[in-house]
Amino acid sequence: MAPHPVVELTSEASWNLIEDKFSPYGKETLAKLVAFLQDEIVPSVKLAHAQIPKDPVERWKTVIPVIEELKVKAQKLGLWNLFLSKAHYPEHGVPLTNIEYAVMAEILGRGGHMASEAVNCSAPDTGNMEVLARYGSPEQQKKWLIPLLNGEIRSSFSMTERFVSSSDARNIRTSIKREGDEIVVNGHKWWISNAGDPRTKLHLVMGKSDPNNSDGYRQQSVVIVPADAPGVKVIRAMEVFGYDDAPEGHCEVIYDNVRVPLSNLVLGWGRGFEIIQGRLGPGRIHHCMRSIGAASAALDLMISRVTNPTRKTFGKYLYEHGTVIADIAKSRAEIESSRLLVLSAALQIDKYKAKGALKEIGIAKFVVPAMACGVVDRAMQAFGAEGLSQDQELASMFAGLRTLRLADGPDAVHIQQVGQRELKRATGLAKRAAELEKKEAVVMQKASIKAHL
Amino acid sequence: MAPHPVVELTSEASWNLIEDKFSPYGKETLAKLVAFLQDEIVPSVKLAHAQIPKDPVERWKTVIPVIEELKVKAQKLGLWNLFLSKAHYPEHGVPLTNIEYAVMAEILGRGGHMASEAVNCSAPDTGNMEVLARYGSPEQQKKWLIPLLNGEIRSSFSMTERFVSSSDARNIRTSIKREGDEIVVNGHKWWISNAGDPRTKLHLVMGKSDPNNSDGYRQQSVVIVPADAPGVKVIRAMEVFGYDDAPEGHCEVIYDNVRVPLSNLVLGWGRGFEIIQGRLGPGRIHHCMRSIGAASAALDLMISRVTNPTRKTFGKYLYEHGTVIADIAKSRAEIESSRLLVLSAALQIDKYKAKGALKEIGIAKFVVPAMACGVVDRAMQAFGAEGLSQDQELASMFAGLRTLRLADGPDAVHIQQVGQRELKRATGLAKRAAELEKKEAVVMQKASIKAHL
Amino acid sequence: MAPHPVVELTSEASWNLIEDKFSPYGKETLAKLVAFLQDEIVPSVKLAHAQIPKDPVERWKTVIPVIEELKVKAQKLGLWNLFLSKAHYPEHGVPLTNIEYAVMAEILGRGGHMASEAVNCSAPDTGNMEVLARYGSPEQQKKWLIPLLNGEIRSSFSMTERFVSSSDARNIRTSIKREGDEIVVNGHKWWISNAGDPRTKLHLVMGKSDPNNSDGYRQQSVVIVPADAPGVKVIRAMEVFGYDDAPEGHCEVIYDNVRVPLSNLVLGWGRGFEIIQGRLGPGRIHHCMRSIGAASAALDLMISRVTNPTRKTFGKYLYEHGTVIADIAKSRAEIESSRLLVLSAALQIDKYKAKGALKEIGIAKFVVPAMACGVVDRAMQAFGAEGLSQDQELASMFAGLRTLRLADGPDAVHIQQVGQRELKRATGLAKRAAELEKKEAVVMQKASIKAHL
Amino acid sequence: MAPHPVVELTSEASWNLIEDKFSPYGKETLAKLVAFLQDEIVPSVKLAHAQIPKDPVERWKTVIPVIEELKVKAQKLGLWNLFLSKAHYPEHGVPLTNIEYAVMAEILGRGGHMASEAVNCSAPDTGNMEVLARYGSPEQQKKWLIPLLNGEIRSSFSMTERFVSSSDARNIRTSIKREGDEIVVNGHKWWISNAGDPRTKLHLVMGKSDPNNSDGYRQQSVVIVPADAPGVKVIRAMEVFGYDDAPEGHCEVIYDNVRVPLSNLVLGWGRGFEIIQGRLGPGRIHHCMRSIGAASAALDLMISRVTNPTRKTFGKYLYEHGTVIADIAKSRAEIESSRLLVLSAALQIDKYKAKGALKEIGIAKFVVPAMACGVVDRAMQAFGAEGLSQDQELASMFAGLRTLRLADGPDAVHIQQVGQRELKRATGLAKRAAELEKKEAVVMQKASIKAHL
Repeated sequence: MAPHPVVELTSEASWNLIEDKFSPYGKETLAKLVAFLQDEIVPSVKLAHAQIPKDPVERWKTVIPVIEELKVKAQKLGLWNLFLSKAHYPEHGVPLTNIEYAVMAEILGRGGHMASEAVNCSAPDTGNMEVLARYGSPEQQKKWLIPLLNGEIRSSFSMTERFVSSSDARNIRTSIKREGDEIVVNGHKWWISNAGDPRTKLHLVMGKSDPNNSDGYRQQSVVIVPADAPGVKVIRAMEVFGYDDAPEGHCEVIYDNVRVPLSNLVLGWGRGFEIIQGRLGPGRIHHCMRSIGAASAALDLMISRVTNPTRKTFGKYLYEHGTVIADIAKSRAEIESSRLLVLSAALQIDKYKAKGALKEIGIAKFVVPAMACGVVDRAMQAFGAEGLSQDQELASMFAGLRTLRLADGPDAVHIQQVGQRELKRATGLAKRAAELEKKEAVVMQKASIKAHL
Repeated sequence: MAPHPVVELTSEASWNLIEDKFSPYGKETLAKLVAFLQDEIVPSVKLAHAQIPKDPVERWKTVIPVIEELKVKAQKLGLWNLFLSKAHYPEHGVPLTNIEYAVMAEILGRGGHMASEAVNCSAPDTGNMEVLARYGSPEQQKKWLIPLLNGEIRSSFSMTERFVSSSDARNIRTSIKREGDEIVVNGHKWWISNAGDPRTKLHLVMGKSDPNNSDGYRQQSVVIVPADAPGVKVIRAMEVFGYDDAPEGHCEVIYDNVRVPLSNLVLGWGRGFEIIQGRLGPGRIHHCMRSIGAASAALDLMISRVTNPTRKTFGKYLYEHGTVIADIAKSRAEIESSRLLVLSAALQIDKYKAKGALKEIGIAKFVVPAMACGVVDRAMQAFGAEGLSQDQELASMFAGLRTLRLADGPDAVHIQQVGQRELKRATGLAKRAAELEKKEAVVMQKASIKAHL
Repeated sequence: MAPHPVVELTSEASWNLIEDKFSPYGKETLAKLVAFLQDEIVPSVKLAHAQIPKDPVERWKTVIPVIEELKVKAQKLGLWNLFLSKAHYPEHGVPLTNIEYAVMAEILGRGGHMASEAVNCSAPDTGNMEVLARYGSPEQQKKWLIPLLNGEIRSSFSMTERFVSSSDARNIRTSIKREGDEIVVNGHKWWISNAGDPRTKLHLVMGKSDPNNSDGYRQQSVVIVPADAPGVKVIRAMEVFGYDDAPEGHCEVIYDNVRVPLSNLVLGWGRGFEIIQGRLGPGRIHHCMRSIGAASAALDLMISRVTNPTRKTFGKYLYEHGTVIADIAKSRAEIESSRLLVLSAALQIDKYKAKGALKEIGIAKFVVPAMACGVVDRAMQAFGAEGLSQDQELASMFAGLRTLRLADGPDAVHIQQVGQRELKRATGLAKRAAELEKKEAVVMQKASIKAHL
Repeated sequence: MAPHPVVELTSEASWNLIEDKFSPYGKETLAKLVAFLQDEIVPSVKLAHAQIPKDPVERWKTVIPVIEELKVKAQKLGLWNLFLSKAHYPEHGVPLTNIEYAVMAEILGRGGHMASEAVNCSAPDTGNMEVLARYGSPEQQKKWLIPLLNGEIRSSFSMTERFVSSSDARNIRTSIKREGDEIVVNGHKWWISNAGDPRTKLHLVMGKSDPNNSDGYRQQSVVIVPADAPGVKVIRAMEVFGYDDAPEGHCEVIYDNVRVPLSNLVLGWGRGFEIIQGRLGPGRIHHCMRSIGAASAALDLMISRVTNPTRKTFGKYLYEHGTVIADIAKSRAEIESSRLLVLSAALQIDKYKAKGALKEIGIAKFVVPAMACGVVDRAMQAFGAEGLSQDQELASMFAGLRTLRLADGPDAVHIQQVGQRELKRATGLAKRAAELEKKEAVVMQKASIKAHL
C-alpha cells in the first residue's frame, strides 16, 4: 500500500519520524481513512449542510441522511471507533495506538466534525464510550455502550453548569440524591453537546451526591439519565459566534426532579471526579490533532486563493502583495511544530498513559488550538469578506477551534499547570548548581585564579 | 455641564489632551450623547434583539420598534446626523468637527451598531448621505438625501462584486450603460449592507460605464437604483461567522437589466472612482473610533467578570489566576494608545481634510480593528464558553470588528501604503545623512582624529 | 520661527495635537534644541566615542573633550537644565512644562546619552538635582546642587544592592547609622551609574537607618556621600551586553565604614522612601520619550538602508524583499502611538503632578521601552551583521533601551500596577451594571417581552 | 549505560520519539558527552573566561589553557569530531547520524561555544573540514585537513564582504586571478570568524575568478590562503553588541595582492558557489540545536532565580508575581516544539541529504534562533539588571543567538523560501479542488439538491 496519500495530507518529515511506530494494520487503516476522507466524506460535506433545514424548529429534528449513509460505508470498511485503543479497552477497542489514532484524527480534522461522526469518533460520544467501557456495569454496557459503539444512538456529557464556574468540580450545584431505589437529579446545566440531537438517548450527568464530604473531590457522582426521562428539559441551544450547530447543539438543560433507577449510577457513589479525570486525557490530544487537520486545510485553502489568477489585484497575484508569503511560511512552521508536539504527547500516552503525559498534553492543549485559530485567521484575511461567510468553511472552523481554547480547561489552566510543573525542577536544579559551583571552585583554584566575589 | 460622564466613559488623560479642541456646543452634545447612550440606548439593546423574529423569512421584514422610538427621542434631543460636519457640508451639516465626532463615535461604539442607527449615524447611510450632499443634484437631494437625513429611509452602497477582487476598482464587471434617456444596470454584487432592510429605498451602484477608457480610474460611474426597481434581485444574506445581521443584512444582489432614468446618474459619467475616494476617509476613522468604544466596553465586561465573587474557582477570584491582570493592563494600554492615534488622525482631517491625513488614517485603520479584536478575544476567554455565546455581546462584537480588518481595504493595503509613504522619506534622509557625514568629518579633522575607513 | 525642523524630527500629527500647549518660549527653545542637535551634537558623537581610550584603565579617567565643548555652547544658547520645570522648582527651574520637555527629550533621544549630557539633562544627575532642589538644605544646595546645575560635577544615586532584590525598598541592607555627629555608612551596592566618572563628586546613598521600624517604609534614609570619602570603593564596572559605558559606568561600589558629617543627611531620618518616590515619576517619562527618539532614529536608519541602491540583492532593493515594508509601517505606527501615550502622560503630570498620573506613567513605562527594543531589533535585522556591530549605533541603542525595561521598576511591576488600578473600577462598573439591568427590565416589561431567565 | 542524564538534559518525550534512531554507539557517545559536559566543560567555563586577558592587544594572542586541556581529555574519550558523519565522510567521519549529532549539539549548546571547541566541533572549522574532506585534494587534506581534524590548528571561512550585500554571491567583489602558476587574491572581507585566533592557519577565501561568466553562479572560486601569507591584513575585530569574542573574533580582513600556489584552488575554477551550497545545510541545523541547548540552559537559570528564596520581593517568590509562570510555560512549549522541528529536519537530512530537507532546514532556521532569543530575553528579565551583565551568561548568549538570525542567510530569506515552496503546492491543490467539485456535484445531484450558484 502506497504511503503517498498519507504523506501528502500530513507531512513527510513528521511521517518519517513516526513511521516505525505504526503497525501494518495502522498503516493500512490510515491509507483507507485517507481515501475515504477524500473520496466520500469531503465531497459530502456540502450536501450534509444543505440537508439541515433552516427552519428554527425543524433543524433540531433532523437526522442528516448523507451522514447516515457514510456511517454505513465506514463501518463496512472497518473505519469505525478508531479512537478506542485495544491496549486500554481490550474488549471493545481496535488495535490502534494513540500515536496511530492521532495521525488519523488529524486526517479527520480536515473534514470538519462531520468526518468524525461518519467514523463514529465524535465527541462527546467518544469520551462517553470510554467511560462506559471502563466503568460501566455489564447491564449499562449492554443497554447504552453497545448501541453507541454501533453508532445507533448518541449521547451527552452533562457537566458544565450555568451561573457557576464548574471547571472547579467543587462548585457544582446539581444534586444527585438517592431516594429509595431511585436516584433523583436536579440541576441546571448548559453547553451540553448533542443534547439537541434526536438520536441522543442518554446523558451522563455529573452532580453532587455528598456535598458535605470533607474531601471536595469525593462529593460528586455520575449517573445515566435517559434523554427522554420526565423532567429532562432542553431549554435552548447555545450559539457559538452565531452558529447553533444543529442538530447536535450545545444546549441548556434543566433536570427537574428527574428520577432514574439506582442501577444507573456509574462506578459508585462519590466517584464522579475520578470518572471525569479518566475521561479527559487522550481526548484532549485528539481535539488538538483535529485542530492541526483544520489548520492544514485552512492553509491549503489560503494557498489556493492567493495563487488564483482570477483574484489578481493591481496586476499581481495576491501572494505577491504584502506579507502573504511570510504568513504562509509562518503558518506552515506553526503547523509542523504543533503536529510534532501532539505526536510526541500521543507517544507519551502510549508509553505512560495519560497520567504520565500530563506535561506533553498540557503543552499541546494550550499551544495547538490557539495556533490553529491564528492560521485560520490568516486564511480568512486572504479570502476577504468571503472568508468570514458561509461560502467558506473558515469562519465556522474558527468558531469551533476558538471553543477548544476553553473546552476541557481554558488555556490559562494548562499554562499554569505546565509552569508549575517546571517549577518543581527547581530543587534538582539547585542541587546541580551547588555541585557546579564546587567543581568550578576546584578548577579555579587549581589554576590559581581568584573568582570575583 | 459636568464633564464627568464623558471622562468616565472615555479616558481622562486623552480628554485633557483634546478638551480645548471642543466647542461649547461640542461639549454639550457629547454630554447629552453620553446620557442618552446610558439611559436610553444601552438599556434597549436587549429588547431590540428580542424584537427580531427568529423565523428565517419574517426577520427580514422587520422594522425594530424600539429603535424607531429611540430615533424619535434622539432627533428631539438634537443627537442626530452628528457625523455630518458643517465645515464640509454647510447646508446640511451639524457644527461639529471630526475630532468632536470621533469622541462621540467612540461613545456610540459602546452601544453596538444599534446605537449608531438610533442617532442616524450608521454606515452605509452615513457615507451615502455624504455622497449625495456633496455630489447629488438638487433633484437627487430632494428625493433621496432629505429622507435619509430625516431617518425615514435607509440605503445601500453597492460596490463589492462576487467572483472578482473588486477592491481594485478596475476589476469591476457591473455594466452601467446609457440607452436613450435611460441607464441600464447589469451586475452581480454581494456584501451589500442594508439591502435586506425593508426601509432601504435606494442603492448607490458602482459599475463600468466606459470599460475601455485608457485611464482605468475613469471607467466607472455611480448611479442611483431604487431598491424596488424591476430587476433588483436580493438573492440571499451573507453571514459573518454565523450572524446574518437581519434585518439590515449584507446581501448578495443581482441587477438584471435594471432601468433607471438618466437623472439618476451621480456627479457625471466616469466619475465613480472620484466618488468612492471622497467617500472613504473620515468614515474609516469613525469605524476605528467605534471599535475603541467596543473594545472599552469589552474590557469593562472582562473586569466585571474577573472580580465577580460568584465566579471564583479554587478559592480565588478569576483575576488572581494566570495572566488576567496583565491581560487587562495590556488591553488598557492598547485602548489608550489606539484612541490617541484616532484622535490625532481626526484632528489631522480637521486641519488638512482626509487627503492630508492619509498616513494617520492608514495607521489607525490597520492598528485599531486588530487591536479591538484582540481585546475582545481576551474578554471572551475570561467569560469562558458564555463569552462566545448569544448571552454576551462579545462574540458578535468580535465578528463585527473582524470585518473591519477587511472593509474599506484590508489591513495589508493600509500597511503597504503607510510603509511606502515612509520610504518616500528616504531622499530627505539621504541628504541629511550626507550633510551629517560632512560635519562629522570636519569635527574629526579639527580634533585630528582619523576615522576608521 | 519656522516649526519645520520640529515637525520633521517628531511628527506633524502629534505636534498639531499639542502645539497649543507650548508657550512661545517653549517653541523657541525647541527649535534651538533641534538645530543644536543636528548641527552640533550628532556630528560630534563619533568623535566623542573616539576620544574614549580603549585601555581598560585609562578609559575610566577620561573627561571627553568634545562633550565639554558642547556643554559650553549649550549653556550659552540657554539649552541647559531643560528638565527642571520652574512650575515645580521655582528657584532653579526653567520655564518649561513637562509636555514641553517631553518633546525635547525625544529630540535628545536621537543623539544618544551624550546628547542629554551636553545639555545637562542626563540621568542620574537630573533626578539628583531634583532631590537636592526639593529636599536639600541650603548648605547642601550650595555645595552640591549649584555645581551640578552648572554642569561642573556629576553624581550617583546609590540604591540598588547586590545579593538582594532592592526594588522592594524594605529589602535594603546598607546601614546608615548615627555615631555622634557623624553618620557611618556600610553597604554593598551595584549598578551605580556615574560612579566611574572622574567628575562624579557625590553619591546619594539610600540605606537603613531604622531597620526595626514597624513601618517598613520609614526605615530608610538618604545621605550624601562624597565620592572621595575614605571607604568608598568602586570595585568594578558592570557591563550591559558587553558595554561598560565608560567613563560613566554602572559600578559595583562598597561603602566600608564611610563617615560623613550629620549635615549630609537629606530631608530627615526615615524619609528615604519618600525621597525616592518623589524622584521617580517624571524621570520615567523622560526615559520613555528618549526611547521614542531612539526608535525614530533607528527607523530612519532602517529606511535609509533598505532604499540604498548599493545594498540591492538579487536585483531588488532590500525593501522589495520579504516583510520589510510591513515592518516599517508597523514600526511607524508603534512609534506614533507610543509618543502619544507619553505626551498624554506628560500633560497629566503637568495637571496633576506625578501622583495624579500614575496610570499614564505606568502604561508608558511598560509599553515604550519594549516597543523601542522591537523597532531597533527590526532595524538591526535590516542592516545584517553590521547592525549588531560597533559600526552602527543600533546594538548599543538596543542595550540601553533593554535596561529601561528593568530600570525604575521592571515591566512586570508596572503592568501589575496598571492592572490592579483597572480592577478598582470594578465597584463602579458593578453599580452601573445593576442600574442597567433595572432599566433593561423596565424596557422589556413595557414591551411585554419576557427576557430569558 | 543509563539513559537518565540524557533525558534530564533534553526531554523525555522527544527522546522517546527518536530513541530507536540511535545506534548503541550513538547512545554510548551521548551519555559520555553529557557526563563530560557536566563534569568537565561547564565547570571550566568561568576559568576559560578568566584566562582571556583584558588588555586590548594581549587578548588576541591568547590560547586559552583550560580549553586545550579539555581538548586532550575529549579526544581520549572519543568525543571528537562528532559532527562529521561517516555516512557522508567514510574516511574521516565518526559513525553518527545527523539526528544523533543533533541531540549532541543541543547538549553542547548548554556549554556555550567553548563546549563545541572542546570536542573539535566548532564553526567555522566544522564546515571547513567538511569542505576539505569532500572537495580537497589529497595534498590539501594532508596539509590542512588532518591538523584541523586533530584540533592542532583552526581556520576561517572568508566570504562576507564589506560594502556589498554578499549574501547574494553574485555581488562578491573579491578577485581571485591566476597569474602564471600562482593565484592572486585581492579583496575586503569582514565578519571572518577565527581570523583573530593565533592558532588559525588558513582562510578558505571565496572570490570571483570569472566575473563575466554569463552564469552568475559559475563566477566564483574558493582558494586556500595561509593565514600568515604576505598581504593578509587583519584590520580589526567586529563587535557583536559590545563583545569582541576574543581570541577567535569576527574580523575585518583585507587581502592585498596575496599570492598562493595554484594547488591551493579548491575543487576547481568556477566551483565556489557549489562549495558553499554543500557547506551550509547540516551546519544550520547544528546551530539550531545548539540554540535549543542555550535556550534550555537559560530557562533552567530562570527557574532557579524565580524560586530562589533570597530573591523574594514584597513577601513573595518572584514566580508568584506577574506572568512569570506563564512565561516559563510558554518558554518550555517553545523549546519542546523547536527541538522537535530540528530533530525532524535532522532525520530528513539523514534520509535525503540536505537537498531533500530544504523545507525542514528552512523552517528550523527561521523559527529556532528567534525562539531562543525570546526565551533568553525572558530569563534576562527575571534576573533584573544582573541578567544583562557579565555576571550571568544570558546577555552574551543573547548576542550569539541574535547573530544566528542573520548568519547563513537572514530569517527573511528562509521565510521567503519556505513560503515559495508552499506556493508550489498550488497546482496539486487546484487539481484536487477541481476533482472535489466534481464529486460534490455528483453527490448533490444524486440527492437532488441544487447548490447555490
